[in-house]
Amino acid sequence: MGDRETRCNAGGQFMDRGRMNQNGVVQPLLTDLYQITMAYAYWKSGKTDDHSVFDLFFRSNPFHGEFTIFAGLDECLRFLESFHYSESDIEYLRRTLPEGTENEFFDYLGDLTAKDVTLHAIDEGTVAFPRVPIIKVEGPLIIAQLLETTLLTLVNYASLMATNAARYRMVAGKHVNLLEFGLRRAQGPDGGLSASKYSYTGGFDGTSNVLAGKLFNIPVKGTHAHAYITSFSGIEELKARLLKHKLTAGVTGDLLELAIKYRQKLSTVLNVSMEESSEGELAAMVSYAIAFPDGFMALVDTYDVKRSGLLNFCAVALALNDLGYQAVGIRIDSGDLAYLSCLARETFERVAERFKVQWFNKLTIVASNDINEETILSLNEQGHKIDCFGIGTHLVTCQRQPALGCVYKLVEINGQPRIKLSQDVEKVTMPGHKNAYRLYSSDGHALIDLLQKVSETPPEVGQKVLCRHPFQESKRAYVIPSRVEPLYKIYWQNGKITQKLPTLELVREKVQKSLKTLRNDHKRTLNPTPYKVSVSDNLYNFIHDLWLQNAPIGELS
Amino acid sequence: MGDRETRCNAGGQFMDRGRMNQNGVVQPLLTDLYQITMAYAYWKSGKTDDHSVFDLFFRSNPFHGEFTIFAGLDECLRFLESFHYSESDIEYLRRTLPEGTENEFFDYLGDLTAKDVTLHAIDEGTVAFPRVPIIKVEGPLIIAQLLETTLLTLVNYASLMATNAARYRMVAGKHVNLLEFGLRRAQGPDGGLSASKYSYTGGFDGTSNVLAGKLFNIPVKGTHAHAYITSFSGIEELKARLLKHKLTAGVTGDLLELAIKYRQKLSTVLNVSMEESSEGELAAMVSYAIAFPDGFMALVDTYDVKRSGLLNFCAVALALNDLGYQAVGIRIDSGDLAYLSCLARETFERVAERFKVQWFNKLTIVASNDINEETILSLNEQGHKIDCFGIGTHLVTCQRQPALGCVYKLVEINGQPRIKLSQDVEKVTMPGHKNAYRLYSSDGHALIDLLQKVSETPPEVGQKVLCRHPFQESKRAYVIPSRVEPLYKIYWQNGKITQKLPTLELVREKVQKSLKTLRNDHKRTLNPTPYKVSVSDNLYNFIHDLWLQNAPIGELS
Repeated sequence: MGDRETRCNAGGQFMDRGRMNQNGVVQPLLTDLYQITMAYAYWKSGKTDDHSVFDLFFRSNPFHGEFTIFAGLDECLRFLESFHYSESDIEYLRRTLPEGTENEFFDYLGDLTAKDVTLHAIDEGTVAFPRVPIIKVEGPLIIAQLLETTLLTLVNYASLMATNAARYRMVAGKHVNLLEFGLRRAQGPDGGLSASKYSYTGGFDGTSNVLAGKLFNIPVKGTHAHAYITSFSGIEELKARLLKHKLTAGVTGDLLELAIKYRQKLSTVLNVSMEESSEGELAAMVSYAIAFPDGFMALVDTYDVKRSGLLNFCAVALALNDLGYQAVGIRIDSGDLAYLSCLARETFERVAERFKVQWFNKLTIVASNDINEETILSLNEQGHKIDCFGIGTHLVTCQRQPALGCVYKLVEINGQPRIKLSQDVEKVTMPGHKNAYRLYSSDGHALIDLLQKVSETPPEVGQKVLCRHPFQESKRAYVIPSRVEPLYKIYWQNGKITQKLPTLELVREKVQKSLKTLRNDHKRTLNPTPYKVSVSDNLYNFIHDLWLQNAPIGELS
Repeated sequence: MGDRETRCNAGGQFMDRGRMNQNGVVQPLLTDLYQITMAYAYWKSGKTDDHSVFDLFFRSNPFHGEFTIFAGLDECLRFLESFHYSESDIEYLRRTLPEGTENEFFDYLGDLTAKDVTLHAIDEGTVAFPRVPIIKVEGPLIIAQLLETTLLTLVNYASLMATNAARYRMVAGKHVNLLEFGLRRAQGPDGGLSASKYSYTGGFDGTSNVLAGKLFNIPVKGTHAHAYITSFSGIEELKARLLKHKLTAGVTGDLLELAIKYRQKLSTVLNVSMEESSEGELAAMVSYAIAFPDGFMALVDTYDVKRSGLLNFCAVALALNDLGYQAVGIRIDSGDLAYLSCLARETFERVAERFKVQWFNKLTIVASNDINEETILSLNEQGHKIDCFGIGTHLVTCQRQPALGCVYKLVEINGQPRIKLSQDVEKVTMPGHKNAYRLYSSDGHALIDLLQKVSETPPEVGQKVLCRHPFQESKRAYVIPSRVEPLYKIYWQNGKITQKLPTLELVREKVQKSLKTLRNDHKRTLNPTPYKVSVSDNLYNFIHDLWLQNAPIGELS
């Protein structure tokens, strides 16, 4: 079979272009069939090269929030770079499209690349808002159309995940570590990989997912599971007990013996009966400490945090101390996390004082049981001593809203605007090729996003600009921006990526920077203030004229 | 770069072993770091070869239901087949584990395969219930442990998705077509692929996802989007108008001209004003019909179903009829689906009669707007004429419950049972290596699942067997089974798959067969009756003795 590496390097499942890696399933056939049937119909109708503009945008922010983090751009660009139907793709399409489909169409598809489209986008990691396109694709109708589903797939979950992670970061505060632990509950193997990647983008500090660590260079973290603890039933099972002193050469100690000695002392100090605590747990912790004397982090809730886990942990940690090592901390995976974390902190402080081991005060407390935004808020309210949250299911599946509704709409063709009407005003698209600007106040906060026709002059610093609600006539405001930020850059043109793309690390920083420009009331969890998205007077009139032209006059009967 | 095919065939992103294909991200590093750190600690403690048994099971059924479809086994087995750390994996682990980690451990990992484990499982596609292990992994502790996360990832979403799809199938009934349209909203590119695959398993008829079609041989379906319709603004844009007669050689018709003629007549028959209907829509439909004269299926809600879409569709369909073709149907993507589908059906019937075109009565009506289980139930109640649902977001993200909580617990080591206690009785694991049997009534329905210790004699047909609730002492019943089904088969042993694995198609059939054995009250949407899972008297006593041995006696202070 050969080594997997060879296959990878031969261009297999992951393509590394010196940036991030991409899953090999991202290919032109990762799309809806109707894109291909439409392509054929465009081709048959001679509309192949009609110059089109598509907007990719969402209509509402997820999680009852008022902001969204845009992510997935890097993957979109790599998809454009590699866009090409393989021979077997074409062969599959031949078998799949109706019999009469002309051969020349397949030849046409076989030669198709994304070189004729131009992709404009806001920067990855930027805060984005409903109805302001985050990506605009411009170019021949057929190829611009063929990109739709894959671009949506790459942006929707990435942005949802980054937004979710950013929200966790906000409620947890800056000083708490956040780890993504969700692989086993993710939606498919790549759901897990994407979750790891974009939760890091959104502000997490690491993941338990080793492959994500390898592919995206994200810090990976983890200690052990309950199974490790339960795999030992008593100290007699311990085959290795000796540990070399960290600093003093030639000195070796019996870690078990030391731990047993401390356990006895601690039993009095902590007022816990030794008989009630588990010897299997003690054995497991000793063995784990021997394997990772410098990184000893133990799960303490397998039997009972108070009556067993903390006692055994402290005993082993003090034993390690005798041999020159410092333990890292504990993980609690069940029970009342507020209470147990305070109990643990108090225990560590008592031990630090009683045994004169200062570093005990700094032991890390990790909590990891079914945590979501609300749990963290509630823990904050109750008061807790947790330094790090390990978050799984709720984070990676975005339980509160498992999909972001990005859409991809045709807004202009051959210079003519297109509007998609709907009974639901929120679903009416904004026609025409548009530009977007973010206007800032003098204190650096984002005031409003403004959409204009591309033909209009951009707003200027210090100049009054009329910003209108796109659909409600009476809602208007004059804004005098202290800073004007054009939101779009051309990221792809003439078959090439036209910007230096940031690393994942830089995108991650961008998220926090961009969030800082938002006022707190837009970001708060409870009843956040909607951020305003507006259109220029010119665009307002343009939309509404076109709307009236296209809407049939109703008739009640 | 070479052709993607070559890379694939060289063993790249998808491995085809004559069965289904597997995503290349499924590899041993797709796991939590703690599996690797535990492995090292086991290795250091000389526990590498301790004989262990792990149970993979879930604790509650998803979607407030009372059953779960087990899926993902095929992928688990292929993961076992290919389990092997590559050189770059090992190199990454060397960089990632703490400095002191011994070199020999990495050599050990480099040689590790899954050949020494045995995997028992229930058949893929079978109905499964809480606490009855769906997979049991038996073998050396270190490798059995290292498989945990990946197996969970492969089973959790697959089973969740298959279950969700099966539920949609049940509420929609047998005679409605169900198509999965969710790729764009799925959780990552592979989330979309897995969704397509496992919704097919669960009872869907096809997908819009072309790559899923290519890789898994699932029927792919689709017509066009609103963008196709709005890309035409008038009939003057139509470059191609001619269509050859299907049956009569040498005869060619002007499809536009014919359609315009019928449109005029229909305007009277359907009492719709021609001025209000969109000419752009007419042009789009004509062009689409020219591309797919035998597969004409049109989206009718871009402007107005009643005043534009249906009129234009019927005009083009009648024009096609003149040239020997039969249209397929329409898709409605917004509005009141019950009302609009009835309106459409009525319209088709009227046209069939008025124009003497019998096949108009059989036109297909597809509905596809934000549909979930409740929408279908409500449509059923209201009465509708929909033949086919295209279902996206709610299906693929499993919105009502986006994760299944399968866990993987150590239940036995070196012949000694292990129990994981918890304050929450539902979370207590059932210790020891167990067998499971499904007991059937004389009418063929599944009565109860029974767990026993492996050492016990299996229940026998016609013999009374005592089935006990695992945790509630007073809940017991005698069962006389008419059929006894042992639930487990060995699927993997001595490094080989030991069963002939079914195709996706056969697994899909199995799902429906297995569901048929369940009484309707277990399957209904509202307040379903829980299916009983029981333990033998012997296992009951075994669990409870062990529980008392391990649980500390509480102390109130």
